[in-house]
Amino acid sequence: MSPTPANARGGIDLGGTKIQTVIVSARNRVLGEARRPTPTEGGPEDVAAEMAACLREAADGAGVETEKLLGVGIGSPGDANQETGVVSGASNLPGWEGSFPLAENLEKDLGAPAFVGNDVQVAVDGEFALGAAKPFDSVLGVFWGTGVGGGLVLNGKPWLGRGAAGEVGHMLIRRGGPRCSAGHSGCIEAYAGRSMMERKARSLAASGEKTDLFRIMEQRGRDRLTSGVWERALKHDDKVAHELIKRATKALGEGIASAINLLDPEAVILGGGMGVRFGERYLPRIKKAMEPYLFDPKNPPPVLLAELGDLGGAIGAALLAKKAR
Amino acid sequence: MSPTPANARGGIDLGGTKIQTVIVSARNRVLGEARRPTPTEGGPEDVAAEMAACLREAADGAGVETEKLLGVGIGSPGDANQETGVVSGASNLPGWEGSFPLAENLEKDLGAPAFVGNDVQVAVDGEFALGAAKPFDSVLGVFWGTGVGGGLVLNGKPWLGRGAAGEVGHMLIRRGGPRCSAGHSGCIEAYAGRSMMERKARSLAASGEKTDLFRIMEQRGRDRLTSGVWERALKHDDKVAHELIKRATKALGEGIASAINLLDPEAVILGGGMGVRFGERYLPRIKKAMEPYLFDPKNPPPVLLAELGDLGGAIGAALLAKKAR
Repeated sequence: MSPTPANARGGIDLGGTKIQTVIVSARNRVLGEARRPTPTEGGPEDVAAEMAACLREAADGAGVETEKLLGVGIGSPGDANQETGVVSGASNLPGWEGSFPLAENLEKDLGAPAFVGNDVQVAVDGEFALGAAKPFDSVLGVFWGTGVGGGLVLNGKPWLGRGAAGEVGHMLIRRGGPRCSAGHSGCIEAYAGRSMMERKARSLAASGEKTDLFRIMEQRGRDRLTSGVWERALKHDDKVAHELIKRATKALGEGIASAINLLDPEAVILGGGMGVRFGERYLPRIKKAMEPYLFDPKNPPPVLLAELGDLGGAIGAALLAKKAR
Repeated sequence: MSPTPANARGGIDLGGTKIQTVIVSARNRVLGEARRPTPTEGGPEDVAAEMAACLREAADGAGVETEKLLGVGIGSPGDANQETGVVSGASNLPGWEGSFPLAENLEKDLGAPAFVGNDVQVAVDGEFALGAAKPFDSVLGVFWGTGVGGGLVLNGKPWLGRGAAGEVGHMLIRRGGPRCSAGHSGCIEAYAGRSMMERKARSLAASGEKTDLFRIMEQRGRDRLTSGVWERALKHDDKVAHELIKRATKALGEGIASAINLLDPEAVILGGGMGVRFGERYLPRIKKAMEPYLFDPKNPPPVLLAELGDLGGAIGAALLAKKAR
């Protein structure tokens, strides 16, 4: 085992499907990583225990004890209060409708200072500090995954508004359109969020449209349409899969154009599980969908793919541990 | 005549319909004002000459010579370059498709330093410094007039993005919807811009709908549906007028909600010719239209009416003359 790295930090990306952890060096090199499924039963304590175990696994790989870490940052869904370390209303996690002192809990378990932040915002911060957004001062991050999240960096600093800014996924593209998971009608997420794409695929299948999506899902032992399932279906030229991806990328382009008209950022960064997997292939289509809705179509900001990939959320979270609480 | 006020400044709001000028004291009290119709023929030189004459008229009223002014600020349509004082592509002004050195021209004519800024942004800056937005650090200004303009102040400073931020009027509410003056489909302005409301009224009238809008317009000696014409028609319970105002306020509410989801500002300020005239009456309706589309409908930012009224643009422009170019 190599000597214990000095000033290493931990990062945890807490998602509805999986927990991803990393240990990074002082210069943000990944020294260890681990991944576990997010518990689907129990409550916040159980999720926190699994997070700690998953971080310990990454620390083992990096050859460092968690007690020696400078700190551990957590990118969390729900309302993550950076000041208090409390996470509230993380409705895609089991039994987490109320408030839970996540930072405090992990601090005790891991023996290192812990910090929480919004999952999408830390991923954007990661891209800003270390990834595709490095050359820019102001960026809009769009994270296309189970839902469609977003985050802003303006003049080099995260823009949180009154605490809830960056919900690009809930920007309107068609009043009266289908509803998203949060019940809003016609927003980007209603068309492009992976869980909403699944809902639409189920209703198309139920109404008799032929699709292999659910057969592939079962073959792969999944209980939902993961991005891997979509990928496989597209490869098999599944008509429904192609249609729904087209619908999603169109909505993403239109909504991003609307956001650009308001903010005119230097760049847009596309990330998230679906964004990382399909971005390269479908970016031209997303840009094409933007055009008719841009205030100044001759001068759009560049739309770039997130560079930190699957580990981006966890690496971005580790940045939180650089600041004092 | 009272003694010449020290450190007085001039402000010019250059609109497609009218030129509004003010002279303000060091503490932004209005000392004089004047208003003239914007020339509809000729070119930038003719418009600039009329602006200078209109400012001189306000200066006469204030008992100050323009040469004694600390400076003159101009809120301009088109692309107003603050650095160079050049205004380009002001397509709603006669012969102003190209570039014209507006600040330089007025400097020579008036004998005082001149500064240009975007018309809507200076109006927002005015509300921020002196009006309804004074208590806040971050606001979205929505200016409902001939078009629907917007401006942002974030962390106490105008947010211009790469130079074109704040185009809230061109945010999407219904893909594939009607087109706005700039040719975008389904944006707020397509429904709520006064000139687009007029276009829709004309097409309804042409298809046989009964409306008094155009009779009132002629009676008042107008060649377009001014906000005064709309007001009169609403008073007479004109069905088409009520319908189109309803359609406009709905679009405004939906689009503002979408902007709030992205930016989460501390407040929204509604101004502009239509906003000033109808805001008080229809604000409840606009807020109601926001609700279903807000990410967090329990906690919307306040939506307030601009307080500087018709002079707001010119007073905001005068603030430009406080800075060195």
